[in-house]
Amino acid sequence: MPPFFSFSIDAECLGSWARAGTIQTPHGTIHTPIFMPVGTQATVKSVSPEELHAAGTQIILANTYHLMLRPGSELIADFGGLHSFMQWDGPMLTDSGGFQVFSLGHLRKLSEEGAAFKSHLDGSPHLLTPESVMRIEAELGADIILPLDICAAYPCSVSEARAAMERTHRWAERALLAKEKYRPEQTLFGIVQGAFDPELRRQSASFIGNLPFPGLSIGGLSVGEPKQMMWDMLSYVTPALPRDKPRHLLGVGSPEDLVIGVGLGMDMFDCVLPTRVARHGGLFTSHGRVNIKSARFRAQHGPLEESCDCYTCRSYSAAYVHHLARTEEQLYYRLGSIHNIRFMLRLAGQLREAICAGNYPAFRDDFIARYVPASEKVREEQREKWKAARRT
Amino acid sequence: MPPFFSFSIDAECLGSWARAGTIQTPHGTIHTPIFMPVGTQATVKSVSPEELHAAGTQIILANTYHLMLRPGSELIADFGGLHSFMQWDGPMLTDSGGFQVFSLGHLRKLSEEGAAFKSHLDGSPHLLTPESVMRIEAELGADIILPLDICAAYPCSVSEARAAMERTHRWAERALLAKEKYRPEQTLFGIVQGAFDPELRRQSASFIGNLPFPGLSIGGLSVGEPKQMMWDMLSYVTPALPRDKPRHLLGVGSPEDLVIGVGLGMDMFDCVLPTRVARHGGLFTSHGRVNIKSARFRAQHGPLEESCDCYTCRSYSAAYVHHLARTEEQLYYRLGSIHNIRFMLRLAGQLREAICAGNYPAFRDDFIARYVPASEKVREEQREKWKAARRT
Repeated sequence: MPPFFSFSIDAECLGSWARAGTIQTPHGTIHTPIFMPVGTQATVKSVSPEELHAAGTQIILANTYHLMLRPGSELIADFGGLHSFMQWDGPMLTDSGGFQVFSLGHLRKLSEEGAAFKSHLDGSPHLLTPESVMRIEAELGADIILPLDICAAYPCSVSEARAAMERTHRWAERALLAKEKYRPEQTLFGIVQGAFDPELRRQSASFIGNLPFPGLSIGGLSVGEPKQMMWDMLSYVTPALPRDKPRHLLGVGSPEDLVIGVGLGMDMFDCVLPTRVARHGGLFTSHGRVNIKSARFRAQHGPLEESCDCYTCRSYSAAYVHHLARTEEQLYYRLGSIHNIRFMLRLAGQLREAICAGNYPAFRDDFIARYVPASEKVREEQREKWKAARRT
Repeated sequence: MPPFFSFSIDAECLGSWARAGTIQTPHGTIHTPIFMPVGTQATVKSVSPEELHAAGTQIILANTYHLMLRPGSELIADFGGLHSFMQWDGPMLTDSGGFQVFSLGHLRKLSEEGAAFKSHLDGSPHLLTPESVMRIEAELGADIILPLDICAAYPCSVSEARAAMERTHRWAERALLAKEKYRPEQTLFGIVQGAFDPELRRQSASFIGNLPFPGLSIGGLSVGEPKQMMWDMLSYVTPALPRDKPRHLLGVGSPEDLVIGVGLGMDMFDCVLPTRVARHGGLFTSHGRVNIKSARFRAQHGPLEESCDCYTCRSYSAAYVHHLARTEEQLYYRLGSIHNIRFMLRLAGQLREAICAGNYPAFRDDFIARYVPASEKVREEQREKWKAARRT
């Protein structure tokens, strides 16, 4: 383990792959399992750093793609990195930008060298290579950084999946080499790919897991496939990974994803979903996601959830939050986001407690029995809506 | 003076009509001169109650028109009034809704009885009368309430102006009578009208000033006329008002308006301008309004203004605020609004100090010499833009 990073396992829970761990980084300690709110453009949308801390946030994720384009990684470096630029003093992770190149960039051209693309903002040309990503992430200065990878589309053929995986592996080795030039206090995780082929997933887990990465991210999941397919893939990946490295499930997810993913050996989760659905009115409760704009909250005197300890629920009636949401007041976006972030972090803490107490399977089953998730159909409709909004 | 309200003059400044005063209300003390941030829909856009307090806010204003339509004054009454509905525990003022009926309502029909209109939200029919407004404002529960009045358009003929004023006077008497049925802890201010005719302004000031209102609002100004015309009107109104009642200049204004208005005898000011221009990038500094989106702030390491003690300037570089504004991040709207609110309240405090020290004229002249306001042309363009946006 490098001196600036450590991971220790505090407890494991028989009957599952769930474990509770502790990660040390230069900006502080992270207790796992953990959910990481996403601060795409150097801000978790509508929430201040103080509010993130108050909601129990231990680590946030920021997006290299967005920040390299605006305001630019050099400018951020000139401010001492993202931590001081955005005034977040806790641990931070940056992704590689690869995923956004594929989902947002125009005129992408992929080669062995890297990914050429045009900015979705102004059409300016850019090239990301395994090496340039290491430089850019060094400029951003997060505690944990990710290498450039290729996320295969869903669905795709096995040969496409294999080609993407093999290039991801070669890029991983180039990233490891390139990273040596930069800041030793940053820790580079490896990324496992392999699309939806069990054998490729096993191969990738084994290959990436055996490279000298102190942590591992699982990429290429939650890209439109049915949930069960994602869980199946994890059941191939986890046993092939080294036990002593933290495992990060990239871009996942919802409350139920957190609960299930932990049982499949995942330690770290990140997703825009909790803050994005909050902005559309979807708030998490122990019984499932509700829409705060619904007429049933119009005159509710108590908070959205009596047992919730978030700022929103401690301060305001559900009726007031409903009013702000219906009138599209900016304060709503903040109150809704804080509630969902706190929900995810309280849930992560409860999962950790359950694991430490040896009760994870019972906690999971109880949670799933109580919590009504958004249906596959609703999720698919929302995904299409967001895609359409992004294209405009 | 009623037992729930008092106004005392702490200092007056020779060579002007400026005075410093203290207002007592059931929800606390207000030191004047004071600026009141506007919370149209039971929220000062993007700012929390805690942040309002931290910015030095002593009293806020909420809009009866918007709240009677959504969520409805009865619902707010069921929550114990606006204070507890929105969790603002300080003094509060509600306007009468009249001004918004004229600017936002559809199919308005004005009669001696009152103002009939259709909601701009759903077309539902409503009737505001001097009596119904007292009931609605009692349900909202603000400390200071205003009676239904008629704001003449600019420009308008003297006969139109006189008719609107005379009806406003009759409605004022009806409001005083109707108010007796409701909550004694609420204080009803009178509203002076008279458009842009000196003689009408003097008449209205004298008439309304002699009714048993414990405070006076000056209406019908800042409705499109040149600034100098507004100041001229105040120079007719102020000498005709009783000295011992606080004077509120309705819907005004900018930093320079505050500085000049105080010298013309005004004690209280309210306006959406500081928060609205903030949302468009316009931030106040001691040298004038700047646009934070301007490229000059792209790499500024220090805060927007070194001497500013607001949360935004104490916490973030100008470059970060610039980045948030350029990327239209929601955190920007909050940071910009907090800065401008704090600027207005610090300015009100400085005006009070200057008055108490007998230095108001020098303070005013020094401020005006340093502060470059938005030009009349820019203001007119913005007004047209907002009007157009409102029509869509």
